[in-house]
Amino acid sequence: MILTSKNNPLIKETVSLKEKKGRKQLGLFLVEGVKMAVECQRSGLETDRVFIAQSYQGENPFPEEKTVTVSDDVFRFLSDEKTPQGILCRVKLPTPALKTPTGKCLLLDGVSDPGNVGAIIRTANAAGYREVYLTRECADPYAPKSVRASMSGLFFTELYIGEKADILAVLSDTPMIVADMSGENVFTFSAPKRFALVIGNEGNGISAEVSQKATHTVKIPMRETQESLNAAVAAGITMYALNKDEFIK
Amino acid sequence: MILTSKNNPLIKETVSLKEKKGRKQLGLFLVEGVKMAVECQRSGLETDRVFIAQSYQGENPFPEEKTVTVSDDVFRFLSDEKTPQGILCRVKLPTPALKTPTGKCLLLDGVSDPGNVGAIIRTANAAGYREVYLTRECADPYAPKSVRASMSGLFFTELYIGEKADILAVLSDTPMIVADMSGENVFTFSAPKRFALVIGNEGNGISAEVSQKATHTVKIPMRETQESLNAAVAAGITMYALNKDEFIK
Repeated sequence: MILTSKNNPLIKETVSLKEKKGRKQLGLFLVEGVKMAVECQRSGLETDRVFIAQSYQGENPFPEEKTVTVSDDVFRFLSDEKTPQGILCRVKLPTPALKTPTGKCLLLDGVSDPGNVGAIIRTANAAGYREVYLTRECADPYAPKSVRASMSGLFFTELYIGEKADILAVLSDTPMIVADMSGENVFTFSAPKRFALVIGNEGNGISAEVSQKATHTVKIPMRETQESLNAAVAAGITMYALNKDEFIK
Repeated sequence: MILTSKNNPLIKETVSLKEKKGRKQLGLFLVEGVKMAVECQRSGLETDRVFIAQSYQGENPFPEEKTVTVSDDVFRFLSDEKTPQGILCRVKLPTPALKTPTGKCLLLDGVSDPGNVGAIIRTANAAGYREVYLTRECADPYAPKSVRASMSGLFFTELYIGEKADILAVLSDTPMIVADMSGENVFTFSAPKRFALVIGNEGNGISAEVSQKATHTVKIPMRETQESLNAAVAAGITMYALNKDEFIK
């Protein structure tokens, strides 16, 4: 059977997952594209349905009982992509309870651009930062744009979204590193074994509450004609600089 | 006098600069926002006009004879921002002839996202890469989105846009470093004094013509569950890793 109506209740429900309200109500988020679908399946996250466009010829890593075939027109309606590949799945939203980090972790303090949030999660997974804490002021990491920018990174990291005060409480015994142009050169700084690296808001930087808890301050040195970097770029340079020992053998 | 009509020839001409065709015809590009306008003026680039919204209260670094005041409505028509600040200038497009690089430089080989092009130029300026070569397949660095993402970086770097073959010709004596997962760890690699670092297309990587000219291959080491990084993030990590001596004293 091929679903051809945008008014079908399952289709309407699934479209609502593009918005935060729908994700919260249903406890699901969307993952689109064949590579992301395969990685999602590999990660062990629970998928409840997969939608396949009628003309889709690619791989479907999910069993037939979860698969729903839809017309290409309906697929475009579900999709968040300009040129949809034809596969999209609904995945159970992980809701882990806040806990103390086990190793090096990230704290996103109001990062507001979904593309930056996704790119930072992608780099966190690559660079060995397992836990990523996000204050409620951040863009939702489960929005389609963030999921896409994370390129599977969010399937393999642990994301904790919470109130700033609650996050700071579980990080109270964790050394906290913030970036500031008055800090130590990040390329010569000796990082402690465990720490939380803080990434602030694109325009306003790190909030006062988090700044107060900082135990170390580092900077990325720059030529004098440039005073800042893109948030995701700065986060990437800093994450690798602070975890270089893992990658230099 | 306050311009209030979107049909005014100067306004129509200026709006055309949002598109590549208009920029090429008039030899001008747009720079928006007070910080960018001030940096642009400081850089020595030549500005022919500055447009100020009627309600704008901020700084205008340009002389009165270049200033045109427009209604807020006309300003929104000129602007590329969701929440315009109220200042926008027209700047002469630099058109330097292709030349051999003087030190460490970048070659963007088909980077197609204007946000990535801008963010890479921003990092290049910070990290000490003066010349940036862009093949014609790249997003235009003078598009409003690239200019904004470069955060003044493009005022202080030298951008050379050209045919791939012509760029490769001026780089023929320059060691060329490409990124590939088979390469040497970028954090332990000893970079030559002069080189061109190549950044490839977001989806397809580096083109065959450029690959053939590579003299060194480096990789950013990653945890196994992540196979790639965002192009601007990867470029930033690599640029700093290859020029770390400049920043470690």
